[in-house]
Amino acid sequence: MKKYKSWAGRFNKETSPLMDEFNASIGFDKRLYNEDIDGSIAYAEALRKAEIITQKEKRLIVKALTEIKKEFETGIFKILPTDEDIHMAVERRLVEKIGAAGQKIHTGRSRNDQVQLDTRLYLKKSILNIINDIANLQKSIVSLSENNIETVIPGYTHLQQAQPVLLAHYLLSFFWGLERDKERLSQNLKRTDVLALGSGAVAGTSFDIDRELLRKLLGFNSISKNSLDTVADRDYIIEFLANCSIIMTRLSRYAEDLIIWASAEFGYVEIDDTYATGSSMLPQKKNPDSLELIRGKSGRVFGSLTTILTALKGLPLAYCKDLQEDKEPMFDTIDTVSICLKVFSGVLDTLKINEETIKSKLSEYIIAIDISDYLVKKGMPFRKSHSVIGKIIRYSIESGIPLSKIELKTYKKYSNLFSSDIYDVLNIKKSINTKKTAGSTSTASVKKQLSAAKRRIK
Amino acid sequence: MKKYKSWAGRFNKETSPLMDEFNASIGFDKRLYNEDIDGSIAYAEALRKAEIITQKEKRLIVKALTEIKKEFETGIFKILPTDEDIHMAVERRLVEKIGAAGQKIHTGRSRNDQVQLDTRLYLKKSILNIINDIANLQKSIVSLSENNIETVIPGYTHLQQAQPVLLAHYLLSFFWGLERDKERLSQNLKRTDVLALGSGAVAGTSFDIDRELLRKLLGFNSISKNSLDTVADRDYIIEFLANCSIIMTRLSRYAEDLIIWASAEFGYVEIDDTYATGSSMLPQKKNPDSLELIRGKSGRVFGSLTTILTALKGLPLAYCKDLQEDKEPMFDTIDTVSICLKVFSGVLDTLKINEETIKSKLSEYIIAIDISDYLVKKGMPFRKSHSVIGKIIRYSIESGIPLSKIELKTYKKYSNLFSSDIYDVLNIKKSINTKKTAGSTSTASVKKQLSAAKRRIK
Amino acid sequence: MKKYKSWAGRFNKETSPLMDEFNASIGFDKRLYNEDIDGSIAYAEALRKAEIITQKEKRLIVKALTEIKKEFETGIFKILPTDEDIHMAVERRLVEKIGAAGQKIHTGRSRNDQVQLDTRLYLKKSILNIINDIANLQKSIVSLSENNIETVIPGYTHLQQAQPVLLAHYLLSFFWGLERDKERLSQNLKRTDVLALGSGAVAGTSFDIDRELLRKLLGFNSISKNSLDTVADRDYIIEFLANCSIIMTRLSRYAEDLIIWASAEFGYVEIDDTYATGSSMLPQKKNPDSLELIRGKSGRVFGSLTTILTALKGLPLAYCKDLQEDKEPMFDTIDTVSICLKVFSGVLDTLKINEETIKSKLSEYIIAIDISDYLVKKGMPFRKSHSVIGKIIRYSIESGIPLSKIELKTYKKYSNLFSSDIYDVLNIKKSINTKKTAGSTSTASVKKQLSAAKRRIK
Amino acid sequence: MKKYKSWAGRFNKETSPLMDEFNASIGFDKRLYNEDIDGSIAYAEALRKAEIITQKEKRLIVKALTEIKKEFETGIFKILPTDEDIHMAVERRLVEKIGAAGQKIHTGRSRNDQVQLDTRLYLKKSILNIINDIANLQKSIVSLSENNIETVIPGYTHLQQAQPVLLAHYLLSFFWGLERDKERLSQNLKRTDVLALGSGAVAGTSFDIDRELLRKLLGFNSISKNSLDTVADRDYIIEFLANCSIIMTRLSRYAEDLIIWASAEFGYVEIDDTYATGSSMLPQKKNPDSLELIRGKSGRVFGSLTTILTALKGLPLAYCKDLQEDKEPMFDTIDTVSICLKVFSGVLDTLKINEETIKSKLSEYIIAIDISDYLVKKGMPFRKSHSVIGKIIRYSIESGIPLSKIELKTYKKYSNLFSSDIYDVLNIKKSINTKKTAGSTSTASVKKQLSAAKRRIK
Repeated sequence: MKKYKSWAGRFNKETSPLMDEFNASIGFDKRLYNEDIDGSIAYAEALRKAEIITQKEKRLIVKALTEIKKEFETGIFKILPTDEDIHMAVERRLVEKIGAAGQKIHTGRSRNDQVQLDTRLYLKKSILNIINDIANLQKSIVSLSENNIETVIPGYTHLQQAQPVLLAHYLLSFFWGLERDKERLSQNLKRTDVLALGSGAVAGTSFDIDRELLRKLLGFNSISKNSLDTVADRDYIIEFLANCSIIMTRLSRYAEDLIIWASAEFGYVEIDDTYATGSSMLPQKKNPDSLELIRGKSGRVFGSLTTILTALKGLPLAYCKDLQEDKEPMFDTIDTVSICLKVFSGVLDTLKINEETIKSKLSEYIIAIDISDYLVKKGMPFRKSHSVIGKIIRYSIESGIPLSKIELKTYKKYSNLFSSDIYDVLNIKKSINTKKTAGSTSTASVKKQLSAAKRRIK
Repeated sequence: MKKYKSWAGRFNKETSPLMDEFNASIGFDKRLYNEDIDGSIAYAEALRKAEIITQKEKRLIVKALTEIKKEFETGIFKILPTDEDIHMAVERRLVEKIGAAGQKIHTGRSRNDQVQLDTRLYLKKSILNIINDIANLQKSIVSLSENNIETVIPGYTHLQQAQPVLLAHYLLSFFWGLERDKERLSQNLKRTDVLALGSGAVAGTSFDIDRELLRKLLGFNSISKNSLDTVADRDYIIEFLANCSIIMTRLSRYAEDLIIWASAEFGYVEIDDTYATGSSMLPQKKNPDSLELIRGKSGRVFGSLTTILTALKGLPLAYCKDLQEDKEPMFDTIDTVSICLKVFSGVLDTLKINEETIKSKLSEYIIAIDISDYLVKKGMPFRKSHSVIGKIIRYSIESGIPLSKIELKTYKKYSNLFSSDIYDVLNIKKSINTKKTAGSTSTASVKKQLSAAKRRIK
Repeated sequence: MKKYKSWAGRFNKETSPLMDEFNASIGFDKRLYNEDIDGSIAYAEALRKAEIITQKEKRLIVKALTEIKKEFETGIFKILPTDEDIHMAVERRLVEKIGAAGQKIHTGRSRNDQVQLDTRLYLKKSILNIINDIANLQKSIVSLSENNIETVIPGYTHLQQAQPVLLAHYLLSFFWGLERDKERLSQNLKRTDVLALGSGAVAGTSFDIDRELLRKLLGFNSISKNSLDTVADRDYIIEFLANCSIIMTRLSRYAEDLIIWASAEFGYVEIDDTYATGSSMLPQKKNPDSLELIRGKSGRVFGSLTTILTALKGLPLAYCKDLQEDKEPMFDTIDTVSICLKVFSGVLDTLKINEETIKSKLSEYIIAIDISDYLVKKGMPFRKSHSVIGKIIRYSIESGIPLSKIELKTYKKYSNLFSSDIYDVLNIKKSINTKKTAGSTSTASVKKQLSAAKRRIK
Repeated sequence: MKKYKSWAGRFNKETSPLMDEFNASIGFDKRLYNEDIDGSIAYAEALRKAEIITQKEKRLIVKALTEIKKEFETGIFKILPTDEDIHMAVERRLVEKIGAAGQKIHTGRSRNDQVQLDTRLYLKKSILNIINDIANLQKSIVSLSENNIETVIPGYTHLQQAQPVLLAHYLLSFFWGLERDKERLSQNLKRTDVLALGSGAVAGTSFDIDRELLRKLLGFNSISKNSLDTVADRDYIIEFLANCSIIMTRLSRYAEDLIIWASAEFGYVEIDDTYATGSSMLPQKKNPDSLELIRGKSGRVFGSLTTILTALKGLPLAYCKDLQEDKEPMFDTIDTVSICLKVFSGVLDTLKINEETIKSKLSEYIIAIDISDYLVKKGMPFRKSHSVIGKIIRYSIESGIPLSKIELKTYKKYSNLFSSDIYDVLNIKKSINTKKTAGSTSTASVKKQLSAAKRRIK
């Protein structure tokens, strides 16, 4: 079979089969068929306006392209071994269908600007989908928060119990982080939403292609400013991978917490059967695979970011073939982040909170700061009160006497400021609502956060 | 010497010297002294308002902190081996100076929110500096563009001559990329510009700390929404490192081009003696070390991004000591990106353009597309014209006859559409101005870009 | 359809379809079918020896497994949506075929040790293949070196001409680097060549599985020492990805040189049509896509290394589902490195060296060090001679008089040590053979290298 | 002050102060002073043998260099702002001290081979140190294992209790991993232990430098084979950073386990006061900062690996200034890995194991596989027994009746194979010693491992 190599004119020999295999991107860029065809349909309009094709030719082209799209959708489009990429595959088929008119579609256009068009169209759509996936996860968070509005958990630092907080406060910390993720993606979207078509190989074109028309037809927000920059630039993809890496750090952290909480030793939560799996050997196992995969998949997203950064490092302008390496990490990241968000949402929607177990694990020492505050309010400088409480806790640990059972006279040995009202302080639930600062874990503050959160996702 | 460990109350033994060395961050976080002290001065005001300290104590604290700041500025502040971080160093000195009042400064505060305060203050300042460095580099670009507004260079794809472009068009592609970098940093700045103080260790505090007052005093744009999120979040730092990584891909690419252009074989530019170095062994060498270092330093910025992503992956909430690893990569990146931008600006300001050499290297084949366009305008479908020109070029290469010396009758063998006006097309300089699309390399388009660019950096 | 979940006994609910999709690894681990089946065949022998199955059951199992392997090879094996991984797919089919005997195959075994077995078997084979690919590339290098044994090129530092070297010397630098790569891979292979089977889920098994028998049957070099380490360890994969990353830095560097040398401005080499491609828009272009892709694909290999490092960071022992993320980066790296090596070999085998062009570009200044050596040999301290030559070159550049045309009396102005024999020194070809040190570029040294190289790849 | 720029001969202008700051490596490469001076002392010997300097000059040089070394050791060496790197600083000082003889030291040498010499000498020493640090950590592991030889802990998969294992078995899994790390480093060492000196800038030298003499004097194992490869190669550094990254994945995983085990909820271990710290705010906190920092510092080592890989990607041969970026990541990694190993050793040496707590947390379900094995030994196919036990466990969970309290008749409902001996199986301690395979957790196997381990570290 004669290869359809659009560019073979000046060549004497055909490329080697090994080179064809190495060079081809059709294996992954076929995913852009929809965007590629939409771009060509719009481009046909611009060619007509520039009087490079006739109205009739345009109709012919649009009709054929629409049919080709259907061929893809229904799975009957046959990719030939000689189709090196999606652009050539579509053009080859177009020429098969309509001959000379098809041979005009690439006038004034290069794959350099075409692939940027396709990629930007595809990424726009994908960013919107991911923003939507985030919003759904936020809904799960809000719902779980509301359903457990009274539940107190230990707030951890260094994986040690630090202070009691509301579970809803913990969950809302997740919400607010995701809110920043959406903001970053929205700004990323704006920088993606730029028309590349009309930049040609590197210099623009001598045909009178109306880029403003293309922008309108394809629904872009703005037009790229410099043809050389347009074909060389992959910033918006790096930015997307970086934003997704941030999302994955977040998901991996909350997944880690839940995995720990689902251990027998913590027992705070139980992952529902629908999001857990068992062991091929050990019959008793119920494993939080869903959350472990989310945590582990942070690796592939960071890896994709490394891939694209490396590929771009020190690369001469404008287009080099190395840039072809941008698509697989981008596609993989879109898929990975999207399913991780969905699965996390599913895990939360079905999560069982073991409130009694949590309560039983709350250490009395978690309110040490409240005793310290008690002394401060009675006039002791904080740094001194901190030291006093430290010593009382050491005494409690070594003697085995819990704080609430230490006698007042013992307390007084550590400071005269203690009086019988100290026993009122030793109440974990109460501790929550003593918090006064904006953004704190007090019930009032958390309810305020919850209202604000609900406004955001409406 | 007794260690000043603010937290030692509950401990029986002192930390091992190895642990002290391992744990200490003072070696690098002393860089935050200014922000740490400013934060404490504002916090003193909030403590006073909350009636935790008196007006007199506040004055005492502010005076002492101002003196301590001066001690740092003049280099007389003595960091003790027992000062594990900048926060403890400042508090230790404060207590030395004013005793009990000093022991009150940390009331309701934790190093967890304090370090976030310091870091955010520091990064805000640094982002603004880097935006300024970018703007200065953009000025160098604009100036070099204006001074060489007529110069034509080969536009490259695959490091092969593709189409002639104006040098100014090439340089402006750099400008527009940097413009996006500034935009990203400005949005990053907004997410950095958030008050963390008042979040305590993880849950907020029971003292009536007015966070709105703190926000105003410290000049933040907004207040963090959730205390747990506040102490756990490092998004804004990852985002900064990602934005800087994008900047470094850009700088490395333009550096690469200039390094290649400075080779004897290209000879397009000469790096000024002020930004070049020689060889310890080879007397003739003049090396573009400045640009090579810019290119190579992309590695350390990507590395810093990897560092922080790794540190955050799978980290339990809220604060863990691992988070201490955020500062060195951030500091190093601030310094690296800033000096790379400045050096690049210096290189451009002193760069010599060898216009004659460039002209001599422009291959005639670079306007092949113009001949193709010529045929298309005479009615030949593009894909066919592409093939025709390919064959003519193969003929030219094999016969050794340049395109402009090929006889008309030979041209006609390839297509009847050729007539004597083909020789008008074979003009590199002219080719530039045939380009019609927005953002193309035509002189008109480039002048428009230049005007727009100048407006941006005014 | 009822799911074949080997582990579902203790579960009340089925996993959600989203979870099934997320959890399944069959999409990529089916690639291990051969190793998985070989492992089970050997395991059947061990089960028989331990008297868990009868001789007859063993024969039944082996026969059925052999048939299943054929089903895979001929493409008729039908993967069901419920086959979550290759292990379950094979076991499910085995049970379909032979019932109860099939249900015994997993006795004392876990997917935790099974997947390690499969992966190690697969990687062993792959490392040997890659070593072979390297050896083939080395053969291309040796052949190209021998065919151009007289060719002198500029040796570059900082992409500036530094000293003349033989092209063969340059090529052999590539050879020796690849030799180290083979050495590293061989050592990596040894650490891969360890039997994992018999470690169970984490603790070993109470059945009397003869691991020494398994080792012999499966051709491993040694037996893993600790069951917990065995199921948790992925060192050998990271090491493989790191070794491949080193290979890719190497390939990317030599690719970069050839890409630059293939530019019109250098013109040192021409990539053969069989390894070059053209442009969809610009008819004259001949692009070194093969080398650019090699350079760019360094990114995906570094990215895979990042992926696995990230996945392992901070992961609790022993097995966690995150470890499933090890396979895709490993497979992708095997494929990438292998094809890059093959393509590089093909590029060299067909490369055209433009000796005349190279000769024409050799700058006279490239032998500055020879003049310096000349003065040193006459008694001038090196550092002084370096400075003297530096000044002479400055004079030559500024006056436009080449070194060989500078009059002796002018030379004498710079140093009295110059006499008429200086003109003998000004000979690039001669310069090569003045080199005396082991490993230098002298013809004798290069021939010695070449002999040594040929011995290595015999 | 006139700059001492050894290479300034051909330059008209001095470098800009910004460039000096950017270019200088003395800030970090001064760390190589010892190696640099040793190299020059050996080189003086080679110069004398080649009759470039006299015996007297050699003595002068050696004496002066020895003094300079002392100046560094005692901290009185004054680095001047004009000393761009350690090589120039030492040479500058040498010339100050002995004039003309000093100006001869760089004859036939380049900083390109000199820096490789220094780095290889330095890294050799550092690798040996790290191997020693690993061996010390292994000693701590062995000691802790021996002291707790009877202790049973849950072996975890997916952070769920999987099977009981000996603590010593768990610890020895750490030991064997470290053993592989030592092996990798030893092989890395061999590839580092190669003499670079005598390769000149890129081509070798025309002076008769006896590289074999240099090898002996400097204690290298072999001589580099190709001068161009020698100055371009950084493989051994990447390999070192990769090996250290593997070490850090290991340390981070065991650190993670211990951090989780040190939580109040697990309570398995207590980090000694000497390796823990407290909170500035919360008096009760005792935080495992030592282990958290080890875990977090994996990030900086992976980051350093990314840095060097990026810097090398696509870099033209042979030497480019980008290569200067190799040293900081290497130094930082040496320091980081070394102190992490030491601290981990310290943590283990002082670790308190809470055997009673561990015992109390061992879930009965952890021996489910033993019941399964029981049925298999009575003839039930494994896959069926797995399912049966799964159902029994579900019954136990739902009914709240522990396995050991389920009546025999109930067991019999699930399978007739159950008889009263089932209650013997329900014994966690016993379970350990039923394991029969090599490398399993049985006491016999662990003691065998322990003996082998002790032989390794003797």
